[in-house]
Amino acid sequence: MPPTRDAALYDVVGIGNALVDVLTNGDDGFLLRHGLVKASMALIDAERSEELYHAMGPGIEQSGGSAANTMAGVASFGGASAYIGKIADDQLGEVFTHDLQATGVSFSCLPSPIGVPTGRCLIVVTPDAQRTMSTYLGVGELLGPDDVDADLIASGKITYLEGYLWDKPEGMAAYRKAAEAAHEAGRRVSLTLSDSFCVARHRDAFLDLVQSQVYVLFANEPEITELYEVTSFDDALQKVRHHCDIAALTRSANGSVIVAGDEVHVIDAYPTNVVDTTGAGDQYAAGFLYALTHDMPLDVCGKLASRAAAEVISHFGPRPAMSFSTLLS
Amino acid sequence: MPPTRDAALYDVVGIGNALVDVLTNGDDGFLLRHGLVKASMALIDAERSEELYHAMGPGIEQSGGSAANTMAGVASFGGASAYIGKIADDQLGEVFTHDLQATGVSFSCLPSPIGVPTGRCLIVVTPDAQRTMSTYLGVGELLGPDDVDADLIASGKITYLEGYLWDKPEGMAAYRKAAEAAHEAGRRVSLTLSDSFCVARHRDAFLDLVQSQVYVLFANEPEITELYEVTSFDDALQKVRHHCDIAALTRSANGSVIVAGDEVHVIDAYPTNVVDTTGAGDQYAAGFLYALTHDMPLDVCGKLASRAAAEVISHFGPRPAMSFSTLLS
Repeated sequence: MPPTRDAALYDVVGIGNALVDVLTNGDDGFLLRHGLVKASMALIDAERSEELYHAMGPGIEQSGGSAANTMAGVASFGGASAYIGKIADDQLGEVFTHDLQATGVSFSCLPSPIGVPTGRCLIVVTPDAQRTMSTYLGVGELLGPDDVDADLIASGKITYLEGYLWDKPEGMAAYRKAAEAAHEAGRRVSLTLSDSFCVARHRDAFLDLVQSQVYVLFANEPEITELYEVTSFDDALQKVRHHCDIAALTRSANGSVIVAGDEVHVIDAYPTNVVDTTGAGDQYAAGFLYALTHDMPLDVCGKLASRAAAEVISHFGPRPAMSFSTLLS
Repeated sequence: MPPTRDAALYDVVGIGNALVDVLTNGDDGFLLRHGLVKASMALIDAERSEELYHAMGPGIEQSGGSAANTMAGVASFGGASAYIGKIADDQLGEVFTHDLQATGVSFSCLPSPIGVPTGRCLIVVTPDAQRTMSTYLGVGELLGPDDVDADLIASGKITYLEGYLWDKPEGMAAYRKAAEAAHEAGRRVSLTLSDSFCVARHRDAFLDLVQSQVYVLFANEPEITELYEVTSFDDALQKVRHHCDIAALTRSANGSVIVAGDEVHVIDAYPTNVVDTTGAGDQYAAGFLYALTHDMPLDVCGKLASRAAAEVISHFGPRPAMSFSTLLS
């Protein structure tokens, strides 16, 4: 990392949709009957959330939210991370706050008192270990620039943002304020494209961001090909390599590719027994960002990212089940 | 089962403390520091619940409650079960209701509007797979006779009651009403002693119940020796064998013993890889009650009970992760 004006308090500050996941097992027939597209994330309203929850089998609740998962992963490595996201003054808000703080992430956003509940993500895990997500954002969709503490952003080496934020105008404004605050403080901005449907919804905005603001871009294969409207991974790779400083492109079982101008690393997936792919991308980003903010070379960043992703997909749930710091030895 | 006046709508109707479990991993040091007795259940108030939750690591939430777990197990076998328990009009109450109904259990208790939250059970799972429980009953402690629908009790072949109910005067009164309604309708009553500390608190009452009202008694080794204030399992066995009609006595890895007067069956534990013992006794009772209400002989009841217990301890959480009906073939 290049030197910045002041010593950073945090390695990474994440901003995203604060969600509690409700995980259940289901089969392809369930997805079909309820019009769900496998392995994607769809936004749903309160009514549809009720409907779908009613149809779902018994669940387990576990704190989630893409960027929050990533911050939990950074903390699990022993990194200093903080999180910004909007929760309500309700039981799911308490659960979210408890779990995030218990992982060692700094989280001090006050619960919103307006009566809109904390967001939840209904996740159906199919026997092929894919997860299909339906998100009711709840109060999370009101996350706006007022929720972004510019001093906190300035105190992190890298600010990490979810593409999902672009689904709501207030979220976009929050994103812009955060990116500005980071750049003003001489810090870096990192973006995950989140979901290929999300990319399709906001392609032009993302293309512009990647070129003008993003130091590290995270994307999986469907997302990066969707961004550049190409059909092959290699075509996307050639497009992105001079478009942002660093791109970390994940390809599920086929591993990942790290590209930074002329530097290219092809990293194998770390072998594991796949139980539930929820959190794979989130923990990949955690490993990468931890390593990057600790001045490790890009190939090591990729390898640590793969280790973290392998751990999280070997069990149910989107956050580490062991201390990632043991992966460092 | 002996013939009763009318055909039964339900195989089993359970009554107990409605709880959402919050499961976390912890070590023996954590138990020591917080004054927790391994493998026991302690009742705690709202303040202590806050304190302990704050100290705990990240958790997962999953619907629990001993009798509710058993009813979910009976339903998983394909049995008809119903549940009576008190929840609040809050998010944990919704989670509890959803999960129980989604397993196929009939549950129609209306949420209490008085503002006391749904109960929760903070469970620390140690590396030896033991679970140590701290229960904040919340609105559950207000479960009283008014919550017991006598017609529902009369429509079940067996009413299944938690010993835990005796911890609160209102719960005792609810127990009495249920037992009376069952007996008036020519139905059976079944009791689980729940926990050895619970037995110590209510020994005389339990001794009287076992003799006068209980058709099937469930107890583990610490509970049954505590009940009769004896030091050996065999001493307890000789005491209980003519004290109630059927006793199903569990001994963890040493299997279980079913005793009904002169009929005695020694059943081996079904081999499995133990991950989390939460729900072992609850699902043992589920297998036993399902088999008993389907007129299977007592040794088969014990074997099915052991299979169900083995399944639930092979994964995290107190309810079946697969359909118990597959154990019947």
